[in-house]
Amino acid sequence: MGKHTIYFSNKPRIISTFTIAGPKESESNFGKHIHKLIYDDRFGEDTFEKAECKMLSYAIENVIKSANISRDDIDALVSGDLLNQIISASFAARDFDIPYIGIYNACSTFSEGFAISASLVDGGYMKKIVTATGSHFATAERQYRYPLELGCTRPPQAQWTVTGAGACVIADSGDYPKIVSATFGKVVDFGITDANNMGAAMAPAACDTLACLFKDTNTKPSDYDLILTGDLGALGSRLVKELVKEKGYDMDNVHADCGEMIYNIEEEKYQGGSGAGCSAVVFGSYIYDKLKKKELNKIIFMATGALLSPVSTQQGESIPCVAHAVVLES
Amino acid sequence: MGKHTIYFSNKPRIISTFTIAGPKESESNFGKHIHKLIYDDRFGEDTFEKAECKMLSYAIENVIKSANISRDDIDALVSGDLLNQIISASFAARDFDIPYIGIYNACSTFSEGFAISASLVDGGYMKKIVTATGSHFATAERQYRYPLELGCTRPPQAQWTVTGAGACVIADSGDYPKIVSATFGKVVDFGITDANNMGAAMAPAACDTLACLFKDTNTKPSDYDLILTGDLGALGSRLVKELVKEKGYDMDNVHADCGEMIYNIEEEKYQGGSGAGCSAVVFGSYIYDKLKKKELNKIIFMATGALLSPVSTQQGESIPCVAHAVVLES
Repeated sequence: MGKHTIYFSNKPRIISTFTIAGPKESESNFGKHIHKLIYDDRFGEDTFEKAECKMLSYAIENVIKSANISRDDIDALVSGDLLNQIISASFAARDFDIPYIGIYNACSTFSEGFAISASLVDGGYMKKIVTATGSHFATAERQYRYPLELGCTRPPQAQWTVTGAGACVIADSGDYPKIVSATFGKVVDFGITDANNMGAAMAPAACDTLACLFKDTNTKPSDYDLILTGDLGALGSRLVKELVKEKGYDMDNVHADCGEMIYNIEEEKYQGGSGAGCSAVVFGSYIYDKLKKKELNKIIFMATGALLSPVSTQQGESIPCVAHAVVLES
Repeated sequence: MGKHTIYFSNKPRIISTFTIAGPKESESNFGKHIHKLIYDDRFGEDTFEKAECKMLSYAIENVIKSANISRDDIDALVSGDLLNQIISASFAARDFDIPYIGIYNACSTFSEGFAISASLVDGGYMKKIVTATGSHFATAERQYRYPLELGCTRPPQAQWTVTGAGACVIADSGDYPKIVSATFGKVVDFGITDANNMGAAMAPAACDTLACLFKDTNTKPSDYDLILTGDLGALGSRLVKELVKEKGYDMDNVHADCGEMIYNIEEEKYQGGSGAGCSAVVFGSYIYDKLKKKELNKIIFMATGALLSPVSTQQGESIPCVAHAVVLES
């Protein structure tokens, strides 16, 4: 057994998914794959933060419904988000009478949730877990960068935080896509200090986890139908492919990035989508559907996270990053 | 098997602990139990945030040393703290070449870490995990409440955030204190909106988890040598004992609270200590020592967390809380 990869002998199943997203995501070509489209950034609430929480709550409620089970069947909610003190997850958890395990690894939270949930189910501790995450452009922008009202110009390397949420039910049995293994990532920091250049900051962490996974499992990129990264964006995706190539792995033909898929990339969104909701929405809709239909049979799903805070940036720190990967089979 | 309690058949061991704390903690009667005392709030760094991170890093490094193992033996670091984006944990993780699982449940993070780590070890996925958390009075105060420079008067129900960190190595074998079960808590919110009254906010969540644990495991308070809560403080401790009594359980004679133990309670610290570092420091020093010497044989350790953020408070929200419990045997 490799150092960083853990294997699930009972192969926990992803028995249902639910995704919800905002106006910009709904209007893109990808919009048609998303379960619930909302055309009001506030989702009927008086603040963006409450809207973010409501989206997450909505996704959790509906993923339970779509699995045809009741709340009482769920043993835990494993959830996190980008807001300070992960309030979206915590306040969403308040709506449900379910044990709550709060996690945070920035935009890699969704695959971290997969790995933790799969361990708890595979180990026989729990039967059904909901794992969920989300993000909101307006809350992330004002928390991490500038108030929207300032109208700051976005640099060309910037990504656009996805307004959306995704949830999955992970269960111990059934004829559904399976979680085969998980590779927890280490924190990697190449000294990037630009909070607008997340793709470049995250690429080395993504490369590190992928290289571990290939080595641990004795596989190569061509053994997979798809290697799906979370939100590296166009620039970060180019970088990770180059970095992985330097380690002897060519994944040019099997790689896709949720951040590159979710928008019709045009000037405003520059490098594509980002945020904890980005990978949750893309995986939970289009990709999960392809796994269920067996159009994809074996994939790596790896969300990547930039672990910065405005305080650490102001104190001159660079951006440490992490990426957690899971291997899924149809 | 009860709904909220999971059982560890291989009983993961806590093979070592390390604690570090600041000037106020060092000067209290409890100080003599703490492994490393520091008399400089900044720990040689130029900001309090960097000092908090350095304490956590120091605890992680030394808990590995005191277990007589090397970093390479550690399969994962499960860690979180109170700062936005849990930067202390993430930046501490950067110092170690170890897979990093970031978690956040405010001051209940330490027992959440126990429960997740024990699951990963008991399930056979990992052999040795470090779980660690910390907090700092100065960083918490300015993040959650007011800048210290304002010199705000503290209300009598206030607690004092512990400047300190604690770390444990959880392993699959050895003659050490064992983790027998874990009870993940639900989010409970009784509508408290005062960010200075954490004890009252957290008591109902603490009661809920304890009642689940007693019911799930068919035990009563007198079956334990100690029921140790994390940081309810003097007021919160009184409340939880009353709430638990209403449910038919009398724990007056077996309850203690880390927040009540860590300071010589006097006017300035009012209700006692709080913060993710509070339970980590008290458990990792005095309590762990008593378990090792078998002066305590069976205890419940339950850290409690208030999941508020300044943003949620400003937006008129009350304080949702959570408490995760583990049962430990000597």
